Amino acid sequence: MGEHHVVVVGGGFGGLQLVNDLKGSGARITLIDRRNHHLFQPLLYQVATTILSTSEIAWPIRHLYNDRPEVSTLLGEVNSVDTVGKSVTLRDGSQVAYDTLVLATGATHAYFGRDEWEPVAPGLKTLEDATTIRRRLLLAFERAETTTDPALREALLTFTIVGAGPTGVELAGIIAELAHKTLPSEFRSIDTRKTKVMLVEAGPRVLAGFSPDLSAYAQGVLENLGVSVLVGKPVTQCSSEGVQVGDDFIACRTIVWAAGVQASAAAQWLSIPADRAGRAIVAKDLTAPGLADVFVIGDTASVSQDNGAAVPGIAPAAKQQGAYVAKVIKARLKGAPAPQPFRYRHQGSLATIGQRAAIVDFGKVKLTGSIAWWIWGLAHIYFLIGTRSRLAVAWSWLWIYLSGQHSARLITQKETLRE
Amino acid sequence: MGEHHVVVVGGGFGGLQLVNDLKGSGARITLIDRRNHHLFQPLLYQVATTILSTSEIAWPIRHLYNDRPEVSTLLGEVNSVDTVGKSVTLRDGSQVAYDTLVLATGATHAYFGRDEWEPVAPGLKTLEDATTIRRRLLLAFERAETTTDPALREALLTFTIVGAGPTGVELAGIIAELAHKTLPSEFRSIDTRKTKVMLVEAGPRVLAGFSPDLSAYAQGVLENLGVSVLVGKPVTQCSSEGVQVGDDFIACRTIVWAAGVQASAAAQWLSIPADRAGRAIVAKDLTAPGLADVFVIGDTASVSQDNGAAVPGIAPAAKQQGAYVAKVIKARLKGAPAPQPFRYRHQGSLATIGQRAAIVDFGKVKLTGSIAWWIWGLAHIYFLIGTRSRLAVAWSWLWIYLSGQHSARLITQKETLRE
Repeated sequence: MGEHHVVVVGGGFGGLQLVNDLKGSGARITLIDRRNHHLFQPLLYQVATTILSTSEIAWPIRHLYNDRPEVSTLLGEVNSVDTVGKSVTLRDGSQVAYDTLVLATGATHAYFGRDEWEPVAPGLKTLEDATTIRRRLLLAFERAETTTDPALREALLTFTIVGAGPTGVELAGIIAELAHKTLPSEFRSIDTRKTKVMLVEAGPRVLAGFSPDLSAYAQGVLENLGVSVLVGKPVTQCSSEGVQVGDDFIACRTIVWAAGVQASAAAQWLSIPADRAGRAIVAKDLTAPGLADVFVIGDTASVSQDNGAAVPGIAPAAKQQGAYVAKVIKARLKGAPAPQPFRYRHQGSLATIGQRAAIVDFGKVKLTGSIAWWIWGLAHIYFLIGTRSRLAVAWSWLWIYLSGQHSARLITQKETLRE
Repeated sequence: MGEHHVVVVGGGFGGLQLVNDLKGSGARITLIDRRNHHLFQPLLYQVATTILSTSEIAWPIRHLYNDRPEVSTLLGEVNSVDTVGKSVTLRDGSQVAYDTLVLATGATHAYFGRDEWEPVAPGLKTLEDATTIRRRLLLAFERAETTTDPALREALLTFTIVGAGPTGVELAGIIAELAHKTLPSEFRSIDTRKTKVMLVEAGPRVLAGFSPDLSAYAQGVLENLGVSVLVGKPVTQCSSEGVQVGDDFIACRTIVWAAGVQASAAAQWLSIPADRAGRAIVAKDLTAPGLADVFVIGDTASVSQDNGAAVPGIAPAAKQQGAYVAKVIKARLKGAPAPQPFRYRHQGSLATIGQRAAIVDFGKVKLTGSIAWWIWGLAHIYFLIGTRSRLAVAWSWLWIYLSGQHSARLITQKETLRE
């Protein structure tokens, strides 16, 4: 084993792009993830809202590299990094030595110091999160159908989404469509069209990453779908009874948290400075300050663009960083000069609102409506991994488009009836 | 609400057939199930073995009757039945009054008084069971890849299936194929072809419901796939270390229980006699003895055929009973004479062994090999509910057939790394 050993922690968009691009570099690679699967997070909300099934957006990482004998996959969770001895220690105590280390460990949702809200207001980062939210959503309708208490019924039929970024907007739109279009004919005691979907945002508008006119368009589409949009309203309390938004209390039994991002502990492992969201502040070549053989990429890295703005925490940015680090490592292995500093190229922003509308912002070209929805759909299918998933997701969407029926309306996990 | 109210408990094959056939009867129907979905149990083992995803074999019950306004669906679990006051009481304390009651509450796996084995030897009756087994199966390979202890590695790569009925045979065949064909190229430290799959059966042969020549054929196919078949060997102990089979101890970390059936508590709720497996012994018209307005059908009923043999606990038998009870109820509502006593018509037996072979027994015609496999596959697709599921399952199978790659190899649920 005389080869250079690259250890990559995290099999998300950045980590996989890196491993893909290191093909042929001669390096031995170990890819560590605490999950056995790569998750296509941009579509996770569709699992939470019964459109897609879990296996359509997740792939066993190990399988992706079955034809790359130099790549080993390890199911494990990093506990600490020894940057002097150059090894990572996993939860089970085992150590993995590296020559080059790349941390691509992502981020999770943040409660701004109110972690006690998590049980009542779950976020959406993993497949388990998605099936938890799906279960709560479907159980709320089931319980509303059987209860004889009108106040409880109304609270069960009220769904609050906190945070109006792309995930919050997508969740609110789909839940409204589910309640208003898919479910009405299936219930006998309740009218699911009376469901209230509340989208609460502390900032001044929905989809703040887009231009104000696209935000306004999105808000209009949401309101047409039956979503109540509350902007400029920070949430001050979440409980099993509801959500406090400024002076207003929304009585509801289902809350989904789509606000705030907290980076993984990569900065702590390396003892390097982090920004407010916990992201490791890295050098222009994405190395950790003072540690030339350690890179940090993706949602757990804080990188500035030339204009001073932060590189956004989205899949294309993570992929560009993965590709860049592969280039740096290959240059080093060949003894070639170091590449230019990393520069992020923004390729455009996309967001859907329900099953028929979307917004697309390519800078000069801005699109809305069904044309934008088709571009959004094709782009997402294109970025899925493998022919099988592309066909499966395209088929699921086509089915819903034609029939209006969602296929993955399953309540699973043990606590089904007791929650 | 002057209509006759039929309460059906259990949305399995029997319960759904009954509700389907009561269409147009004029009865008001309430269908109670503790799950929100009907499960196509004959293919559940394919979820456990990463071939199918959960939503391909489960459908929201509520949706099946969205065009039947007289049918209400209730998510709930029965606690007791008051046959005098004619009502069922649910776990949450609510009561549902009935004019006619049909209990179709199925069965679960039985440990013959050794329920303490369940945590180490899970059975396969629910979607959660299937994802639990899938997780253990995949984690065993992951842990074998990382361990440095040769004895532990061997135990991790040994899988014991207890019970060689159709489910046990199907599980053993697929696990052997997974280990020997699908996974070898993905692991670097272990050779998954060294995996041992042990199929342990207390009776004298595998698939005892088939003729001895078909049993012998099935055993031969299993052995070719790399399964070790142990017949005439009762299991005397299960633990986290392995399985004791007579004088032999099999060191293994993954056990799946596919032996024994225990009926639901229907007989206890009605205080009527049950057979050894707990099945309610019913009259020739499937009513509970002495309770003309209570029927018991499917896996929770003990019904004799003309030749004295018990009606088997399989989907077609439950469906025939559901259809029969619908006929009885309709006759009563019309004041017509009661139909002839229930007679079970056996339409044939099918079982698969891995992805290429099956056995089919239509009485006069017996088939084996790939022709039997195609018949098995087409029959199962035919019996799935809805065009969407048929296409999705056919597509999943075709994909595996052509590519050899399983699509649902996901380890999910919280305890991923700690188990």
